[in-house]
Amino acid sequence: MAQQHREPLLTVADASAGEALARYLHQQATEFLRGLRLHADGGEAAGAAGLLRSAARRIAGALEVYRPLTDTGWADALRDELAWAAEALGREYVCEARLARLRGALHRLFGAPAAGVPGTPGVGAARAGALLERQLTLARNRAHSTALQALGSARFHALADAVALLSADPPLAPSTRPDDLTALAARTHRLLLDAVGALPLSVAGLPYNAEALAHGPDADGRQDVPWHRVRSLLRLRRYAQEVLDEQHRAEVEPALSVRLLTAGQALDRHRDAAGAAAAAAAAARTPRIAPATAYALGVLHADQRHEVEAARFAFGRIWQRAS
Amino acid sequence: MAQQHREPLLTVADASAGEALARYLHQQATEFLRGLRLHADGGEAAGAAGLLRSAARRIAGALEVYRPLTDTGWADALRDELAWAAEALGREYVCEARLARLRGALHRLFGAPAAGVPGTPGVGAARAGALLERQLTLARNRAHSTALQALGSARFHALADAVALLSADPPLAPSTRPDDLTALAARTHRLLLDAVGALPLSVAGLPYNAEALAHGPDADGRQDVPWHRVRSLLRLRRYAQEVLDEQHRAEVEPALSVRLLTAGQALDRHRDAAGAAAAAAAAARTPRIAPATAYALGVLHADQRHEVEAARFAFGRIWQRAS
Repeated sequence: MAQQHREPLLTVADASAGEALARYLHQQATEFLRGLRLHADGGEAAGAAGLLRSAARRIAGALEVYRPLTDTGWADALRDELAWAAEALGREYVCEARLARLRGALHRLFGAPAAGVPGTPGVGAARAGALLERQLTLARNRAHSTALQALGSARFHALADAVALLSADPPLAPSTRPDDLTALAARTHRLLLDAVGALPLSVAGLPYNAEALAHGPDADGRQDVPWHRVRSLLRLRRYAQEVLDEQHRAEVEPALSVRLLTAGQALDRHRDAAGAAAAAAAAARTPRIAPATAYALGVLHADQRHEVEAARFAFGRIWQRAS
Repeated sequence: MAQQHREPLLTVADASAGEALARYLHQQATEFLRGLRLHADGGEAAGAAGLLRSAARRIAGALEVYRPLTDTGWADALRDELAWAAEALGREYVCEARLARLRGALHRLFGAPAAGVPGTPGVGAARAGALLERQLTLARNRAHSTALQALGSARFHALADAVALLSADPPLAPSTRPDDLTALAARTHRLLLDAVGALPLSVAGLPYNAEALAHGPDADGRQDVPWHRVRSLLRLRRYAQEVLDEQHRAEVEPALSVRLLTAGQALDRHRDAAGAAAAAAAAARTPRIAPATAYALGVLHADQRHEVEAARFAFGRIWQRAS
């Protein structure tokens, strides 16, 4: 992230594309620094981390999509560091959200936790809940420590310095044409369309196709990968659109923006459910658990894979309605 | 089933309604007796039992819908005996079909059974499969003995005699108008519409509503009841239609007949999946099973309740498409 190879900053005259990108990066860098200050002032931790992660993802996304307009060596290094920080700061909240999801699902599936006769489903569910509570709280606490360590590290301070510089003086390459942004966003759009094209949408579009739970728990991860990839590209394309909107100081394609958001939300749910299903399956591999606990975890696993299937179906509907 | 209180048989002149009903009962009684002969000759047991049950259900159904056209005391007693026989002869095949369904689901969910390292999902699934195999085979063998006992009983011989009489000389009351059949079928149709109206179809029509697995396994039975009732009424209405078709010697309402059949098939699947889910839950209550086995049974239970939900959705589609 050394700044020595930087090109001179664009002037307003020579490129509205560069200017818009610079403006977007400035805004996001400002959000990032605001998140840092909020954190340093002992503000609401989740809010501060949320700001930091949202800004980090947007800066990294804009630098990825509009890479040819940037000092690429510098931008690539910054993206790596932003990804590291977003991951380190986010893990704690992933554990928290996963636990809340699994708690909600157990309640929906088995009713209110009740102390009852051993062997009844309620007892297995209560024990499964306690086991998940223990395991995910432990994971969350570990993630919290890791996040605090990351925030206090020299690496993070270097990243904060780089973002501060980005805010003041983004290292962009001279842009030749004002429509560069549109062309580069279109390139990301094609990557997104290709990735969506690789999804088994004709199966996912049939309600109750029972695909997400098929072929054994080991296959879950493999079949989820292309969906996770589309989720990432949807987000990237959304950030790319935000830069275009910045260029025009208005929403250029409101319908597209809504579609990217709602389709992305369906795949967020896909990712969350897949993670929750994996956590239930992992908990079921805890040694010496009672059969009733394992049974409840099996029901929970299947329920969350069912949610995975539902999310794929919802994504397909959103996508096809729009095209 | 004593024949002493019988009304005189209708003549061809005075009632086409009674004539058609008598013809239908004669046909079904003949099928019943053919099933009995097939069984006595050591023919294919499932085929013979299938013939017997199908004919028994149809005779009982026709006697129920068109009860005012029959010698009711006699008809009611015969219906009770036919229900007993159909149940006694069918239980064995219910166990067999349930095992096949669960075997297929396990294979779909966990892949081919593999002897592997204890603790892997495949081993739990293989053990769950073996447990279900043992429990349902035992139940099937018991049901087989019960069926053989029933077939050899004095009670069954009395039933066979009654059916033979029915074939030759159905005990019908004098019918006043030829459109009696239509009016009585319409009455059953209204019962069916009322029962369908009581179903939560607006929820069931939303794909992935997650209702069938909600509120705990104890609630499964309760929430299934109104669906099972619609299934019975669909069948009854279908048999009623067969009698009307017999009267007109043609399919009177082909679209309705198809709809009754396909809607009924969706609810057959509902009933089968609900039974399979209950069998998986019951197997999970076996003492001293391994946690991996219980886990696989939990997945299996949830999967079959998912099938219950899918069947409700399918029924809703068929029903709403037609109306």
